Amino acid sequence: MYKNIFAIGPLIQNTLILTPNPKPVKLTFLIHCPDQAGIISSVTSFLHQNGGNVIYLDQHVDKEAGVFFMRLESDFQQNTDKQVLRASFQGELANRYEMEWSIHQERIKPRMAIFVSKYKHCLYDLLSRYQSGELLVEIPFILSNHQDLSFIADQFQIPFHHVPVSKELREKAAQQQLDLIEEHHVDFVVLARYMQIISPRVIEALPNRIINIHHSFLPAFAGAKPYHAAFKRGVKIIGATSHYVTEELDAGPIIAQDVATVSHSHFIEDLVAVGRDLEKIVLSKAVQLHVKRKTMVYNNRTVVFT
Amino acid sequence: MYKNIFAIGPLIQNTLILTPNPKPVKLTFLIHCPDQAGIISSVTSFLHQNGGNVIYLDQHVDKEAGVFFMRLESDFQQNTDKQVLRASFQGELANRYEMEWSIHQERIKPRMAIFVSKYKHCLYDLLSRYQSGELLVEIPFILSNHQDLSFIADQFQIPFHHVPVSKELREKAAQQQLDLIEEHHVDFVVLARYMQIISPRVIEALPNRIINIHHSFLPAFAGAKPYHAAFKRGVKIIGATSHYVTEELDAGPIIAQDVATVSHSHFIEDLVAVGRDLEKIVLSKAVQLHVKRKTMVYNNRTVVFT
Amino acid sequence: MYKNIFAIGPLIQNTLILTPNPKPVKLTFLIHCPDQAGIISSVTSFLHQNGGNVIYLDQHVDKEAGVFFMRLESDFQQNTDKQVLRASFQGELANRYEMEWSIHQERIKPRMAIFVSKYKHCLYDLLSRYQSGELLVEIPFILSNHQDLSFIADQFQIPFHHVPVSKELREKAAQQQLDLIEEHHVDFVVLARYMQIISPRVIEALPNRIINIHHSFLPAFAGAKPYHAAFKRGVKIIGATSHYVTEELDAGPIIAQDVATVSHSHFIEDLVAVGRDLEKIVLSKAVQLHVKRKTMVYNNRTVVFT
Amino acid sequence: MYKNIFAIGPLIQNTLILTPNPKPVKLTFLIHCPDQAGIISSVTSFLHQNGGNVIYLDQHVDKEAGVFFMRLESDFQQNTDKQVLRASFQGELANRYEMEWSIHQERIKPRMAIFVSKYKHCLYDLLSRYQSGELLVEIPFILSNHQDLSFIADQFQIPFHHVPVSKELREKAAQQQLDLIEEHHVDFVVLARYMQIISPRVIEALPNRIINIHHSFLPAFAGAKPYHAAFKRGVKIIGATSHYVTEELDAGPIIAQDVATVSHSHFIEDLVAVGRDLEKIVLSKAVQLHVKRKTMVYNNRTVVFT
Repeated sequence: MYKNIFAIGPLIQNTLILTPNPKPVKLTFLIHCPDQAGIISSVTSFLHQNGGNVIYLDQHVDKEAGVFFMRLESDFQQNTDKQVLRASFQGELANRYEMEWSIHQERIKPRMAIFVSKYKHCLYDLLSRYQSGELLVEIPFILSNHQDLSFIADQFQIPFHHVPVSKELREKAAQQQLDLIEEHHVDFVVLARYMQIISPRVIEALPNRIINIHHSFLPAFAGAKPYHAAFKRGVKIIGATSHYVTEELDAGPIIAQDVATVSHSHFIEDLVAVGRDLEKIVLSKAVQLHVKRKTMVYNNRTVVFT
Repeated sequence: MYKNIFAIGPLIQNTLILTPNPKPVKLTFLIHCPDQAGIISSVTSFLHQNGGNVIYLDQHVDKEAGVFFMRLESDFQQNTDKQVLRASFQGELANRYEMEWSIHQERIKPRMAIFVSKYKHCLYDLLSRYQSGELLVEIPFILSNHQDLSFIADQFQIPFHHVPVSKELREKAAQQQLDLIEEHHVDFVVLARYMQIISPRVIEALPNRIINIHHSFLPAFAGAKPYHAAFKRGVKIIGATSHYVTEELDAGPIIAQDVATVSHSHFIEDLVAVGRDLEKIVLSKAVQLHVKRKTMVYNNRTVVFT
Repeated sequence: MYKNIFAIGPLIQNTLILTPNPKPVKLTFLIHCPDQAGIISSVTSFLHQNGGNVIYLDQHVDKEAGVFFMRLESDFQQNTDKQVLRASFQGELANRYEMEWSIHQERIKPRMAIFVSKYKHCLYDLLSRYQSGELLVEIPFILSNHQDLSFIADQFQIPFHHVPVSKELREKAAQQQLDLIEEHHVDFVVLARYMQIISPRVIEALPNRIINIHHSFLPAFAGAKPYHAAFKRGVKIIGATSHYVTEELDAGPIIAQDVATVSHSHFIEDLVAVGRDLEKIVLSKAVQLHVKRKTMVYNNRTVVFT
Repeated sequence: MYKNIFAIGPLIQNTLILTPNPKPVKLTFLIHCPDQAGIISSVTSFLHQNGGNVIYLDQHVDKEAGVFFMRLESDFQQNTDKQVLRASFQGELANRYEMEWSIHQERIKPRMAIFVSKYKHCLYDLLSRYQSGELLVEIPFILSNHQDLSFIADQFQIPFHHVPVSKELREKAAQQQLDLIEEHHVDFVVLARYMQIISPRVIEALPNRIINIHHSFLPAFAGAKPYHAAFKRGVKIIGATSHYVTEELDAGPIIAQDVATVSHSHFIEDLVAVGRDLEKIVLSKAVQLHVKRKTMVYNNRTVVFT
């Protein structure tokens, strides 16, 4: 009927901690299911009865598709047995409402790999946010089809893997990427202006977990050289679009977009310069939304709870 | 402890309609109360048990003030006895959680009076939206301290009242305004660039139900001649702010703001021209939010559910 | 080699006025020609020597196409013989630099016809600006393929012509449009959400003088039903684009664009509502730029001096 | 009468280079003087006669103050004797029109010192642009009143000076700053969230050459803790402002501003997070405008030619 295709985060470990004055644990629930009456009431009652205190709830109904989406944040006591909670949720709610769902624990940082080519701005922006503590992820490695940016990986003391890509090496490169992703338990990949097609095998391994930045206001100017195309068309506003990668190029679910005003006086190199700022801000925004579990994907569209 | 100061809309009449295939009635609930665990669960369960189907829920907690806010839209059957529903809500929920609350029925149009002076742009914008069916209100009258814009009232066939204001006439004018407001069962007033101070007596009669547009990005440039002040300060962005009127000038709860880019090449008259578009769009946006019951007021701030 | 395709405004009459203290006359010059050294110096010297005082100058070079553009505003004495000035300009400058050029006199209002179908918002916005004195044009008539909006023409006391369009009537309608345009000395036409294809004959009669508003961020979502397409694609920003009409649908030179943020919670009707505000603001902005002679067209792109 | 207070860049050396096919040298002229007829014509003719080819001209008249501003870019042959050019310009033009003026040579990079405290985002943004070649400056040193960010200086291999500030050390610190500025031939200073008052002595040494970023939409929320104030006032938009430092706190000439939309759901820490992106983008934009000689200052306002 319909299918869960949004990212499942790192599994929550079963924990049992007994401390005298435990600080609460915040769990985030992402749920979607066929729309029907009573879901909000059922879920909030369930959480209440299981010791949860709902501190945030956002919901959305796609009336056309008849699908209900919900994101909840709920505080629980430290000693809550999450294994039991998960089992109860599945038994009492998920089966009944045919839910696809996941629970995420705030304090477990997702593991994010970065793929780059030769452009520095998005990479620098991600790494400086990481270094500053703005972006709560682990970065097991940076991968590139070129050697050029290894010095930036060095600046931030992150392992760098050079995986060359060419017609002949395409399959080998995909395998190297998959091996690194598996070996390092990568949760999601960010393409920080990575100028190569991602292999369908890699996309399949990380469904809705590869985030790309395209340097145009999609769907305008999909494909190569969008700034040249924008200049030729004489647009007065340019944009950048961050989206999950699907097999169709530049056609995946959009996470975030932003735009900037330009004029006839902007030549292509000026559009590129203006675009750099858009690209890095939009990509980092999309990455943050993903990390904070604020995105859900359905029918090639995103629900973004902000 | 804390006080309900947001607008209460037109009261819902007790209705009892029996039809074979009744279309559902949409009711909007606005609730705020001291924050505590279990409110969402209690309210949604209550509605579910009383035949409601929650189609939209948005909630907010002001952690600093310890106040919980909720806006719900729920479908009910046509023959729902709203008198009974209201009594049950009060008895089962509102007392228990110390709620301030109101229910609004979508199809009852609120009655909006417009106060103007000599500027035409905001008045035209409101009236053209009204005439186009964008803005679902009744407009019992337009009031002005000048005669100049009576021709616009004529264009749209809306009664026009000339209520002059001067030092000597101030008290008399306030009384005339109050009389008109009462006589025409006015729910809220829009100051569409009305260039006179509103009397405290009028403000008191319509708490958080008088909407003003100020032609600056408040709190910058409060008071008179904000475009002159903006020019003098050399700002690169100007703004407009719509807010509920309180006794302190330009200091009421902000509903909506927007900005536009300007440069050194904009003289004061250019700022005025750019500002006109901002003013009319921001004012109409705020009016729409109010009409759609998307605003709540607390501690001189608004919660705006969009 | 290259061709002047931007609008030539109403011709300036030869005047000779002798008054004791004449207020200066402001003339606006639009010039483009093959790029070469010394043009600015030559033109400003010419104007200085002919009694002009340059109060504004903006210039642009399209390096790729090798074309120079300039817009000048210059004050002249009331009794300046413009016929002589034009002849000198042609003889001393235009021939030498192979210029395409036009002169516009500020106080002569261009004559603007409005074509509409059934949507009210853009029409109301243009008429209220006209009535308020914001938009300095004459409006000889409003034309529509439907009768619905004749009441708005009545509100503003502007002649209304109903020119039905159907497969069979297409040619006849084009002829009626052309006749009205000629009869009323129309300088330019604004399509305020006119939902019919403009005949190539009409386009030819008014090159770069028909302004359309398209309800998307072109080139994204050209053609019919852009809000449906935007919803389906799941974009996070929608836009509106005003452009000169050319034979290729939605592909003419862009004059102005603007955007607004949307989310998954916006259904198609919400996008339509958000879009209405964009459409009317962007169309009016483009019309103002055209009226103030701030646009030039070359290679299907605009130069917009702001 | 009026006074030149904008920054004078690094002096242009007198050069005499003879090469067979010399690439042209681009010089940028910044000029302001009392407004009068014929200036543009005089300057462009002078440049034309002295072998210059004007490739860009922007001009502005502050009608209120009666001051004329111009920015020109002109290509000259490599072997142009700039000493002679400067002398002629002074003799033939500057004296006659009472001009304040400066000439800047594109290829000479200005020397930019960065002052920081403990916030990383602006520093990282500037350094990553510098490292990427986006920002064409020399960075002789980073100075801080804390040791915390020395590791970032190390990452980018830039000298770091720790200059503590306290009530007792204020005068000593100012002297250390002045000594470093002089020793390293610093052209301008960027305060990348430097949380100390700059001594009047330092401001005097670098008039309109110290660029600050303030984390609010000035003049709203000047002074300390603007995000707290913005939260309290309940604004719907927050901003950041970059300005030249003058003795009056947060009151200097504004170079660039930008804003972002917020809502009731943003607590102070959310405003801080949104604000970080604004701050770094706005500061870098202002620095670029300064480096490209696109700013002029007059009457505590900027003219920014873009």
